[in-house]
Amino acid sequence: MSVQPVLINGVWKASAGTRTFQAVNPATLTALPEVYPVSPWSEIEEAVQAAARAAATVATWPGERFARFLERYAERIDARAAELVALAHQETALPVEPRLSKAELPRTTSQLRQAAAAARDGSWLRPTIDTKANIRAVFGPIGPVVVFGPNNFPFAFNGISGGDFAAAVAAGNPVIAKGHSCHPGTTRLFAVEAQLAAQETDMPAGFIQLIYRTDHADGEKLVSHPQIGAIGYTGARETGLVLKTAADKAGKPIYLELSSINPVFMLPGALAERGAALVDEFASSCLMGTGQFCTNPGLVVLVAGSETDAFVKAVQEKFSAAPVGTLLSEGVQKHLARGIETIRAAGAKLLTGGEPGGGKGASYRNTLLTVSGDQFVADAARLQTEAFGNCSLFVIARDASQLSSIASAMEGNLTGTIYSANDGRDDDLYRTVEPLLRRRVGRLLNDRMPTGVAVSPAMNHGGPFPATGHPGFTAVGIPASVQRFAALYCYDNVRAHRLPASLQDQNPTGKLWRLIDGTWSQAHIG
Amino acid sequence: MSVQPVLINGVWKASAGTRTFQAVNPATLTALPEVYPVSPWSEIEEAVQAAARAAATVATWPGERFARFLERYAERIDARAAELVALAHQETALPVEPRLSKAELPRTTSQLRQAAAAARDGSWLRPTIDTKANIRAVFGPIGPVVVFGPNNFPFAFNGISGGDFAAAVAAGNPVIAKGHSCHPGTTRLFAVEAQLAAQETDMPAGFIQLIYRTDHADGEKLVSHPQIGAIGYTGARETGLVLKTAADKAGKPIYLELSSINPVFMLPGALAERGAALVDEFASSCLMGTGQFCTNPGLVVLVAGSETDAFVKAVQEKFSAAPVGTLLSEGVQKHLARGIETIRAAGAKLLTGGEPGGGKGASYRNTLLTVSGDQFVADAARLQTEAFGNCSLFVIARDASQLSSIASAMEGNLTGTIYSANDGRDDDLYRTVEPLLRRRVGRLLNDRMPTGVAVSPAMNHGGPFPATGHPGFTAVGIPASVQRFAALYCYDNVRAHRLPASLQDQNPTGKLWRLIDGTWSQAHIG
Repeated sequence: MSVQPVLINGVWKASAGTRTFQAVNPATLTALPEVYPVSPWSEIEEAVQAAARAAATVATWPGERFARFLERYAERIDARAAELVALAHQETALPVEPRLSKAELPRTTSQLRQAAAAARDGSWLRPTIDTKANIRAVFGPIGPVVVFGPNNFPFAFNGISGGDFAAAVAAGNPVIAKGHSCHPGTTRLFAVEAQLAAQETDMPAGFIQLIYRTDHADGEKLVSHPQIGAIGYTGARETGLVLKTAADKAGKPIYLELSSINPVFMLPGALAERGAALVDEFASSCLMGTGQFCTNPGLVVLVAGSETDAFVKAVQEKFSAAPVGTLLSEGVQKHLARGIETIRAAGAKLLTGGEPGGGKGASYRNTLLTVSGDQFVADAARLQTEAFGNCSLFVIARDASQLSSIASAMEGNLTGTIYSANDGRDDDLYRTVEPLLRRRVGRLLNDRMPTGVAVSPAMNHGGPFPATGHPGFTAVGIPASVQRFAALYCYDNVRAHRLPASLQDQNPTGKLWRLIDGTWSQAHIG
Repeated sequence: MSVQPVLINGVWKASAGTRTFQAVNPATLTALPEVYPVSPWSEIEEAVQAAARAAATVATWPGERFARFLERYAERIDARAAELVALAHQETALPVEPRLSKAELPRTTSQLRQAAAAARDGSWLRPTIDTKANIRAVFGPIGPVVVFGPNNFPFAFNGISGGDFAAAVAAGNPVIAKGHSCHPGTTRLFAVEAQLAAQETDMPAGFIQLIYRTDHADGEKLVSHPQIGAIGYTGARETGLVLKTAADKAGKPIYLELSSINPVFMLPGALAERGAALVDEFASSCLMGTGQFCTNPGLVVLVAGSETDAFVKAVQEKFSAAPVGTLLSEGVQKHLARGIETIRAAGAKLLTGGEPGGGKGASYRNTLLTVSGDQFVADAARLQTEAFGNCSLFVIARDASQLSSIASAMEGNLTGTIYSANDGRDDDLYRTVEPLLRRRVGRLLNDRMPTGVAVSPAMNHGGPFPATGHPGFTAVGIPASVQRFAALYCYDNVRAHRLPASLQDQNPTGKLWRLIDGTWSQAHIG
């Protein structure tokens, strides 16, 4: 049995681990042939030390160096796109087209290129200069970053190619990627290309590293290691909270993206005005990718009435008739079943679905549940259990006035959406609901499903706990996402020639935006 | 016995607590007459609910409203400056002049006014607009903030008047202040003026509230309360870490300023060039305020040699001859004694001091300790024990090359300082030491003691754990300190008239800096 090597300190080497695992094709439920190691602590420690050395080496490098690496890596990904897509399809059962080849892969290389641009233009540095006091501050790398990628985006959130990776590198930090056990082959292929790009662009050994799996206890040791600067984690809430406890105790910033049910409020006027269109819009958004998006609309709030009855009935028919997609793994299927069980135990009634199967391999029937507004408010915690997958819960408010109690009972979410009539008849209600929803979500949408997450500088893919660990940061959108992996470095009375280029009187590129005595400027000083 | 009331929900009311405490004049070690309550949980819960209501009321208020409150409050403080100074002197034994009246009080009102300016000009909002995707994001209030002030700055870091208070209010957040038990009278007087200013400027009841003391368990409940947005804590490491654990578990951002020994590297050329001046500079900085500054130089690294011998001897003489100041409390005295004990147990030798007494009331002799570089590296954790007060430890490196190992053994600190020769002879050594020290401190200084903390937009009064809980934030400096109490709110496809003013096409003031499609601008859109 040949075990895949790990990437440590610039070398693909045999793991010292004795335990192994294999990925499973979720569409056939058969194990894939490649065998991957569980890394023992000695190996992880070696990676951390290599990352620390790499961090010291690159500490004062200009952003241009990281930009060149990121861009070369993106080119290499493009060149192996077909293989990556085929492998990811095998490991995740996500559709080749449009999902993997036309959406996620281009998005991934675009993120890497946007991160390269941020590294080059320094938009995340936010140099702040007080010329009178001669105090100058700038953001800089926080130290080696550990990235845990999730199961649901084998490219765009992968530990060695996704948004956290790109952001951490743009800020000049080495990355130790922890691959997700569902798609180790895809992850390995990315790492091969990343390492070649790193060599071609003269990055130090240990700047990017890959391990596939660790013991739980070693994961906690890793995130609390004195040499680690910060952690990015996207995935299940339970594991994320365990890592958060370990990282918090060691004083390590950990950026989490845990779970979110993304409430959608359909105000009565919107339903009356364009109910049929909303049926299609909601059903496609909720079933797309078999519902396995962080921003899947898992909760829809409606006001009791005949239009709501019609909407519910039409969605129910759509869900029953729609083909059932394959889930990412049997684990996801079980997790979904457990979530639905909890929601039903809390009093929600099944409208359709509620059984495993119906699709190829790991699958669960398209599921809709319904509960009254009264029940929701009475047991809001359980009824907000995330049922990650092709499932949603309708909450039927007694009347419009109950929407406020429902909105107030919401936990922190990544997104919140309000559909309202175009003719203004919902506007009073909007003004009541919006402030309550607003502070419980990172991104507020109007008249659009939350599943699309544009990589925009103004995006917030974040939100209050338990959606994430801190409501001031976003995992998507550059340069804001880069900021997570930065520390603030102040220079007080430091001699001019010793300042980093970004803080010298001369603007290093003539284009770097700096806050000089309260004014944002690209000018030189003096 | 008349017990001082607490300020809850806009009213000064008798506490429901049955336990009480009194402050002690540290110069006479006699209890002061006023009696203050320990608030029971019911009272704290009442404060939290009032704060949550206040937060909802002011959620969409323009910054101008908070600015008016802060400015009116600053005026009221100015009007009662003499009383505040007298009371604080009685409670802390800090000198009336220049410390309390000429330095700390003006600094406090200046901070409030700078925070008012930030609330008004929106410099902390950082509106980011992607016109093409119509996604717009802006920072906004994070929710009610609990502020725990420390013992050592009765004005400038007071929970109801200091930097955290000013920053939290500037971002539009209600504040629940937890007074420090060493100076409840000063805190009460501030709160009286704050509440009057709040009434005069039509702030809602519960916008600012004051409790004096809680049980430890209730403190943990408070910082993890679902209605609390964030916490600011400045004080002892042990208590801070207990609160951090509770807040972290609940997913509440907690900004800590815990402890810092502020290493100062005196490179050989600097000593040779201006040793005598450095003796004075160091001794004044270290003994000022009886050493009770977060940025007190508690560790000085020197290279063995005759100039170092002369420096050590001269400082030792200064410390022996200098009057011994009064400490803030007997608690501080005991804490200092314990710290010195630990440092001595780890092998440091006493040069002078090392005994309680020598001054009026709570006091401890000016203390100097010394240890070799070898010993320091071997037991770096214990030898970095904070001995908060009029004490410092000299670390004598074997030779210049050992400075690197010493710098590498440093924990996270607020500041790090390097003195070097003006003629350039230390420059090679500087280039070796600086990168190692740089990433372990928030503020790097040249040729200046770290005790002065200017309220500059470029200041970083922060640093890596365990100095603080996150290296990306500063407690001093506006608008950066305001950012700590802000959450990111994104608007995706939200109809134009529903956007907050800061995100509409029209620049609301014509002066607000916004990042529009990658360019910082004060212009309107379109």
